[in-house]
Amino acid sequence: MRAVVARAGKLICEDIADLTPGPGQVLVKTLCCGICGSDLHALHHLDRMVDMGKRANGGVSGGLDASRDVVFGHEFSAEILDYGPGSAKPLKAGTRIVSMPILMGPAGPTTVGYSNDYPGGYAERMLLQEAMLIEIPNGLSDSQAAMTEPFAVGAHAVAKAALDEPGAALVVGCGPVGLAVIASLKARGYGPVIAADFSPARRLMAERLGADIIVDPARESPHTKWREVGVWTTGLEQTMARMGGQTVKRAIIFECVGVPGMLQRLIDAAPAGSQIIVAGVCMEPDSIEPFLAIAKQIDFRFVLGYTPEEFAKTLNDIAEGRIDVAPVITSTVGLDGVAGAFAALADPESQVKIVVEPGR
Amino acid sequence: MRAVVARAGKLICEDIADLTPGPGQVLVKTLCCGICGSDLHALHHLDRMVDMGKRANGGVSGGLDASRDVVFGHEFSAEILDYGPGSAKPLKAGTRIVSMPILMGPAGPTTVGYSNDYPGGYAERMLLQEAMLIEIPNGLSDSQAAMTEPFAVGAHAVAKAALDEPGAALVVGCGPVGLAVIASLKARGYGPVIAADFSPARRLMAERLGADIIVDPARESPHTKWREVGVWTTGLEQTMARMGGQTVKRAIIFECVGVPGMLQRLIDAAPAGSQIIVAGVCMEPDSIEPFLAIAKQIDFRFVLGYTPEEFAKTLNDIAEGRIDVAPVITSTVGLDGVAGAFAALADPESQVKIVVEPGR
Repeated sequence: MRAVVARAGKLICEDIADLTPGPGQVLVKTLCCGICGSDLHALHHLDRMVDMGKRANGGVSGGLDASRDVVFGHEFSAEILDYGPGSAKPLKAGTRIVSMPILMGPAGPTTVGYSNDYPGGYAERMLLQEAMLIEIPNGLSDSQAAMTEPFAVGAHAVAKAALDEPGAALVVGCGPVGLAVIASLKARGYGPVIAADFSPARRLMAERLGADIIVDPARESPHTKWREVGVWTTGLEQTMARMGGQTVKRAIIFECVGVPGMLQRLIDAAPAGSQIIVAGVCMEPDSIEPFLAIAKQIDFRFVLGYTPEEFAKTLNDIAEGRIDVAPVITSTVGLDGVAGAFAALADPESQVKIVVEPGR
Repeated sequence: MRAVVARAGKLICEDIADLTPGPGQVLVKTLCCGICGSDLHALHHLDRMVDMGKRANGGVSGGLDASRDVVFGHEFSAEILDYGPGSAKPLKAGTRIVSMPILMGPAGPTTVGYSNDYPGGYAERMLLQEAMLIEIPNGLSDSQAAMTEPFAVGAHAVAKAALDEPGAALVVGCGPVGLAVIASLKARGYGPVIAADFSPARRLMAERLGADIIVDPARESPHTKWREVGVWTTGLEQTMARMGGQTVKRAIIFECVGVPGMLQRLIDAAPAGSQIIVAGVCMEPDSIEPFLAIAKQIDFRFVLGYTPEEFAKTLNDIAEGRIDVAPVITSTVGLDGVAGAFAALADPESQVKIVVEPGR
């Protein structure tokens, strides 16, 4: 079958071995697969990602060898072709599905799209875990269904925030992660949501996904908006307000940029008592001043991925129209267009999410 | 009146001007005042503390000038001498009280003990805010009542933790802050509590305050104990346990050391999903690797101080015997012994909390 193979920092479109489903596995035809920022990073820094993952997981590597071929792609929709031996075949062949990109291999769970053994969605076919399949409802399009995974990342970040307290949210960075956060906040009826990004195209996208206040950080700090949305910024003001019997709104900040320096910039500028959800993946060491974080009593919640419930709920939110993913899909390519798409994604003005259609 | 004045990095016992209570203020006789680690730091680095406080509070300095005289001391018990003009005098002269070290000055709230205008507890008398006074109940001793403030710091750190979820706690560093955390955890019936400190005397103290498992980090990492208390450490183990329908206990870690490097050491060693309450005050910049914190989905909650409710509850816990503060009071001195006590507190084997009795 045709696939885009990542090999020594290059993406090569070529034929790879066909797949045979084992027990509990399902052979599927890939319909659509989004290109994730993590794939862009992994193309050149997979060795570092593997090392960091190993350190995070108590020395367990997950079996991925960065020097061997990988077929990326973990944001997919697909169609069932065949089941492995002994299956009760709960969904008919031809059923369109999405799935968390997790396969139970012989050595434990493996991430489809970050594996030497199981190709991801930049291939005509994949093996998935039967128990993970969810049927695509409501005639939702293949490309929109493929947005379940990246938008589940936003749903997870939002689920980790203390939204039950009175507050207001700021989303810093309106790339795919930030946009997913905005969509999930608005799907839950939460607001006001301030969104900040240097790119005009990304700010427009944030507005289309429901952000209430849009800020160009080159012109003004998004933190000038807190008073406008009823958040007192200093601990002293908050104490005085509480003593006066007033409700003190909490600032919830989603860090969706992921470059060194962001955390300290937020510690400096955020209101006292802020909760900062760190969803931007910063791969470099970073420096902070703990005393300022202490003096302002800041919470940092570092988040990653999503739960099975959040994944299923996100598909439902998209299918029922609570989240409109259509605006973020800015382009579609075949397998032979993947390498070009990786390059195009460097420009935030032209692209947000490029969807690969291996059957095109 | 006699007081210990901090001037140019030295502590000088001398006569200072007598005090007259203004409206809403109360003149009190200081009975006991604990020496806090912050005072040790402030003696040499008050300018830096003032700068950092100003940055944390949106540029508001609180009116403290580090180049002028300060009388430290914010962990006190006292006896009412006289009220300011117009007071209804709710408690009789002679009543023993504690109070949060906050006075409403003409320019807003001021911290008693970190002010150029209002001397703290290393003086024979102080001015306090009438509305803040709490009568000492149950015949509690002057010195034990003075422990309300430092133990309220522990109560606040514990109140910020998610103790309603199943979990286990590790307290890193058994100085006054760590010991107060241990006492508050045990007063709330929480356990198991692992306590770690390099000092044998501090470990013994942790045991007396109720810690369940005591670790010498020079001999073994406290993180080797997680399995013993039922906490799965890697994300993979936790996911598998959840899939098997098992309850996954969360690790709650109290960082009570406050030196650079601690945060990253915890990110490296802590179980996935840990909640780290940062109560140790680190005044230096620090470096972390955000990716590892993200991959392990770690929460950092930076905390400081306490609320009026936590302060009052702590006095009650001490008076009712739920918290036994007696072990931590390792020495008592008069005003002329304060400078020596500051020096003695450098040795964790001999001293935990030294109490100043200005009337001695």
